[in-house]
Amino acid sequence: MSSERTASLGVDIGGTKVLGLALSASGAVLGRVRQPTPQVSDAAQGRPVGTSVAEVAAAVIGELAESVGVDPRTCSIGVGVPGIVDRTGTLVFAPNLQGAIGADLAALIARPFERAPVAIDNDANCAALAEVHLGAARGVDHALLITLGTGIGGAAIVNGAVLRGANGFAGEFGHMMVNPDGPPCPCGSRGCFERYASGAGLRHLAAQAIAAGTLDPQFASAPELLISSATNGDAAALAVVDQFCWWLARGIANLCAIFDPELVLLGGGVIDGKAVVLEPTRAYLATEIEGGARRRPPRIEATVFGSDAGAIGAAILGERQR
Amino acid sequence: MSSERTASLGVDIGGTKVLGLALSASGAVLGRVRQPTPQVSDAAQGRPVGTSVAEVAAAVIGELAESVGVDPRTCSIGVGVPGIVDRTGTLVFAPNLQGAIGADLAALIARPFERAPVAIDNDANCAALAEVHLGAARGVDHALLITLGTGIGGAAIVNGAVLRGANGFAGEFGHMMVNPDGPPCPCGSRGCFERYASGAGLRHLAAQAIAAGTLDPQFASAPELLISSATNGDAAALAVVDQFCWWLARGIANLCAIFDPELVLLGGGVIDGKAVVLEPTRAYLATEIEGGARRRPPRIEATVFGSDAGAIGAAILGERQR
Repeated sequence: MSSERTASLGVDIGGTKVLGLALSASGAVLGRVRQPTPQVSDAAQGRPVGTSVAEVAAAVIGELAESVGVDPRTCSIGVGVPGIVDRTGTLVFAPNLQGAIGADLAALIARPFERAPVAIDNDANCAALAEVHLGAARGVDHALLITLGTGIGGAAIVNGAVLRGANGFAGEFGHMMVNPDGPPCPCGSRGCFERYASGAGLRHLAAQAIAAGTLDPQFASAPELLISSATNGDAAALAVVDQFCWWLARGIANLCAIFDPELVLLGGGVIDGKAVVLEPTRAYLATEIEGGARRRPPRIEATVFGSDAGAIGAAILGERQR
Repeated sequence: MSSERTASLGVDIGGTKVLGLALSASGAVLGRVRQPTPQVSDAAQGRPVGTSVAEVAAAVIGELAESVGVDPRTCSIGVGVPGIVDRTGTLVFAPNLQGAIGADLAALIARPFERAPVAIDNDANCAALAEVHLGAARGVDHALLITLGTGIGGAAIVNGAVLRGANGFAGEFGHMMVNPDGPPCPCGSRGCFERYASGAGLRHLAAQAIAAGTLDPQFASAPELLISSATNGDAAALAVVDQFCWWLARGIANLCAIFDPELVLLGGGVIDGKAVVLEPTRAYLATEIEGGARRRPPRIEATVFGSDAGAIGAAILGERQR
């Protein structure tokens, strides 16, 4: 009898990088591989972006399996992508991975592994799976995950499970319109939640303050600098971060009227658990939530897994769909 | 052996009327009773509105039981209310039944029936239950119910069940903010979805058109007249109804990004299945929904039970919680 080593392999395809993690049966991280995401401009060389992206994901899986000494064909494989994936594994809509739309990523990624089954889902759904199974949402029936990156990723946990909806498109909180006169959004609409409460949103609010002469132009292209200056007490930066927190709380208040969660998890590079965002957002939510005077708002907490959540959740997804 | 007659009794407490329906085991309507809802002004006489409302509901139940020849103590009893009810049966928030907030309606209504258990929930949740079990949403896993009355009632059907959330407050779609510069809402916020896409919303849009001189002032206080004039081809009325439909579609598009339903049911007195609203709303949704070019929007249909849905669903709720 051979005791074959195995692992759960999870890959998170982001707009700029592809991250792969190998998990043990108990959820421990055994290995980690990272490669840059092929860009839309590569398509000019005549290669479909979907194919290039799938090849990089497959390369990450291969390297990961080798690094932990397992045969990828005996492992479960899960993949998270920054867009809407239908139930067959085809990328239907992806503002930050435009060139790969229409690609059957699950099949393309599975190809080098003798068509081993590859489970695929939206990256925020994967991150929610990680938080539900191993992180901050363990044992919570009703929770929301909101990831603040360039845009907003979202996932709803309803009765302890990630909500996928009829076609797997649920949880696109970033494209909830909150201002009909707001700035245009790459999705084709205007004034979407993510135009205010994401990295792009912070940039927009900073640009407004710079145009009004209340903020130094150095902040135009550096939302992270704005957050760190606000943390250090810079009044002009704090004023913009305060607006940001109002919008974030206002969008969360909308989602609370809709879902009534007990927990809202905030993740993503823009805020990364920073008190300068979490505290004012909690305070604004307490007044913005419907019935605020008579109702305790849900807890707002940082995610446990941060930028690893997508890959960890993808590994869990692969394991569950095996 | 006695074959005791029984029935499922359902009561829908509205802002203006209390409707009671008795259902047979197969869902047929056996009896119907209607009484006016006690108003907030009654509280001036020193009687708590919650008590008056509960007494009227109990009277409706008694009259209903008598009319179909059953003992109410042997029947299941369910009640729908226009507000947020917590899991203990207490009314927590009800903009259209302000005086009754804080009342333990379930216990008050049960009193004359020797404390028979009374199940209680939000009226839109009840209406959704009716549509899921006996109406337009039978066999549908992911659907939304949007009731357009004075305000907007909402309920989400997720994996075939009505979503209640952590405290029973889910489905308050009407208080999703869609315009930070919009008109103030009785909930305390501004620019809520129901300020545009309800009876009150139609009134607001009409008032704007009247102020702009494009609509006859006769429409100021009669949204129903506006809908019927639009149906008859009145161009000025049609222009306002068109705006109304855009807002309705825009709110539905937000909810589609969030829930990804296969079916959206529209009910309530304001539209009552009228083509002049349903058709343009479907057309706007097809362009407003995220990923519209690559995705089929959900079906938009009228509810089956119309204004009976709340009481029918309340009867089903009582039966299920028995």
